[in-house]
Amino acid sequence: MNLSELGEFGLIDILTCDLTCGKGVIKGVGDDTAVLETGGDKWFLFTTDMMVEGVHFSLDYSTMSQVGWKLLAVNLSDIAAMGGSPTHALISMAVPPHFEPSGLVELYKGLKKAAEEYGVNIVGGDTVMSPERLVLNVALLGEVAAGKAVYRSGARPGDYVYVTGTLGAPAAGLYLFQKPASACSPQSADYCRLAHAAPRPRVEAGRFLASCGVSSMNDISDGLASEIHEICESSGVGCLIRATDIPIDPCVREVAAQAGLDPLNWALFGGEDLELVFTANLEAEGKIKRCIGKIGTQVYRVGVITASRGICLEKPDGKIVPLPRGGYDHFCT
Amino acid sequence: MNLSELGEFGLIDILTCDLTCGKGVIKGVGDDTAVLETGGDKWFLFTTDMMVEGVHFSLDYSTMSQVGWKLLAVNLSDIAAMGGSPTHALISMAVPPHFEPSGLVELYKGLKKAAEEYGVNIVGGDTVMSPERLVLNVALLGEVAAGKAVYRSGARPGDYVYVTGTLGAPAAGLYLFQKPASACSPQSADYCRLAHAAPRPRVEAGRFLASCGVSSMNDISDGLASEIHEICESSGVGCLIRATDIPIDPCVREVAAQAGLDPLNWALFGGEDLELVFTANLEAEGKIKRCIGKIGTQVYRVGVITASRGICLEKPDGKIVPLPRGGYDHFCT
Repeated sequence: MNLSELGEFGLIDILTCDLTCGKGVIKGVGDDTAVLETGGDKWFLFTTDMMVEGVHFSLDYSTMSQVGWKLLAVNLSDIAAMGGSPTHALISMAVPPHFEPSGLVELYKGLKKAAEEYGVNIVGGDTVMSPERLVLNVALLGEVAAGKAVYRSGARPGDYVYVTGTLGAPAAGLYLFQKPASACSPQSADYCRLAHAAPRPRVEAGRFLASCGVSSMNDISDGLASEIHEICESSGVGCLIRATDIPIDPCVREVAAQAGLDPLNWALFGGEDLELVFTANLEAEGKIKRCIGKIGTQVYRVGVITASRGICLEKPDGKIVPLPRGGYDHFCT
Repeated sequence: MNLSELGEFGLIDILTCDLTCGKGVIKGVGDDTAVLETGGDKWFLFTTDMMVEGVHFSLDYSTMSQVGWKLLAVNLSDIAAMGGSPTHALISMAVPPHFEPSGLVELYKGLKKAAEEYGVNIVGGDTVMSPERLVLNVALLGEVAAGKAVYRSGARPGDYVYVTGTLGAPAAGLYLFQKPASACSPQSADYCRLAHAAPRPRVEAGRFLASCGVSSMNDISDGLASEIHEICESSGVGCLIRATDIPIDPCVREVAAQAGLDPLNWALFGGEDLELVFTANLEAEGKIKRCIGKIGTQVYRVGVITASRGICLEKPDGKIVPLPRGGYDHFCT
């Protein structure tokens, strides 16, 4: 079996299935971050993300500063999904010899801007030579009060499913970069392009939702459908997502209408929204609603967790169909 | 100025010169690892290393398992140089689509072997697609008793300079991989090739040396000359290294003799030895000598720290010359 048949998740399963949680490990492989004991009243969160030029970003679509921002942002989003606060980052870069140093200064500007805005210290890294293309990696530490991390595995039948913000704009932005002749309004185009090039992770919202007692959480980096699959599989439950309740920004609807495409596909399978999907019971929902003004975004109820294992979508026409994972898999393009 | 003119260290200076040590950071950029407060009686050590296929390793010279071992080993060596103990690792891999999954299983075997031997938990990672070649990154956490990390900056005039083990074998091994027709003995060839493909970091020795009160320490990843430059620059001192005191294994001498090369060049500039270079006063030397049997390696005095800033080598003929940095710079090949 080759990598394309196996897929990213199949490969990770094979490589990590015999890893055991050793001393000091609360949670190893299998959630947005690892969770580590420190011996004190905090737990450490530990995560990493790699980005390859031409695969995860294009310098035709993004400035170097935006690439730097996004590189830290995708890691911040993993800390957000655990309900934690990011603290320290290491930056690795493999750089082609022809690369202009000024481009790397711009990359670092974006990294530093995100680091400053989210309270992260950049404390080191590694810089090496790459023959063909830029490869970037961030390793990020964060922290959460001991016992207060939110996992993917806590969803219970009867909980509702929610998302922060609206979905689909980064996918619409990518579409516009690839088809720049679209006739949509400049405002809608700018909104979607910026959502693709410089997404904003929901760190404050993640901390707030954790404090409200949500039962499970994931960040939406690979599409809502893929992330809710992960939550349901980890929790041993199913869900019913209602298509008409999925929040889609009017700008995204406009871009989709001009393109003759269904914006729901972008919202479900587009990925890189860096919003949060979470589950909560009505008591937690009440707490969230009372203080929603604190977190700078809206929260939308989009479905319900079921005891049966099926992961289903109620389509706009009322038909209920299986919801495929369908998100971005790094080896199945 | 392009990257080749600027070099790795010049680039890092430009990118990181305005980074400040924020909350919880004992030591940021500029040593083998970052050093972080945890709020308890331990400090955390945090380091990362990236390796690119065809630049840092070749699958013609190493098995995938050896590449995995070395990937963790180079990070372990950074923790060793601080006097710490490694704890948790994250593995990032950018993998070409044609790559056989069985090769990645072998890579993980080497990673897991090193992790088990050195007491590290592999707690997660990221796996993405790379169009051309394998790019690997490890982020490694470690710990050290609060206040007990050993920095590059502690060398004082009158301290002596020491190395663990012998130097030059990895460089001799690389030479043999590139010129396989060498007439040296199979034993010598095997010793040097293995030193190149699967070096052993000195974690236990690093902890022991820290407990003896050595004044500064660095791991030898870029050649002894480069590492002693870093110690002297960080400490604001100079040194005199005595060529005849640099320990070189007879196997390395044999390979060099067959090749008509001076093994001293491999020992000074070869890199990737993963031994430790450190400085200590006579009191610390006494402690080290009394318990040397504990650490499974020898320690050799190779020079002395001077108040004048010059970094010099006493050659075998007695002449004293400036010792160039000369080590591996990732953009100046």
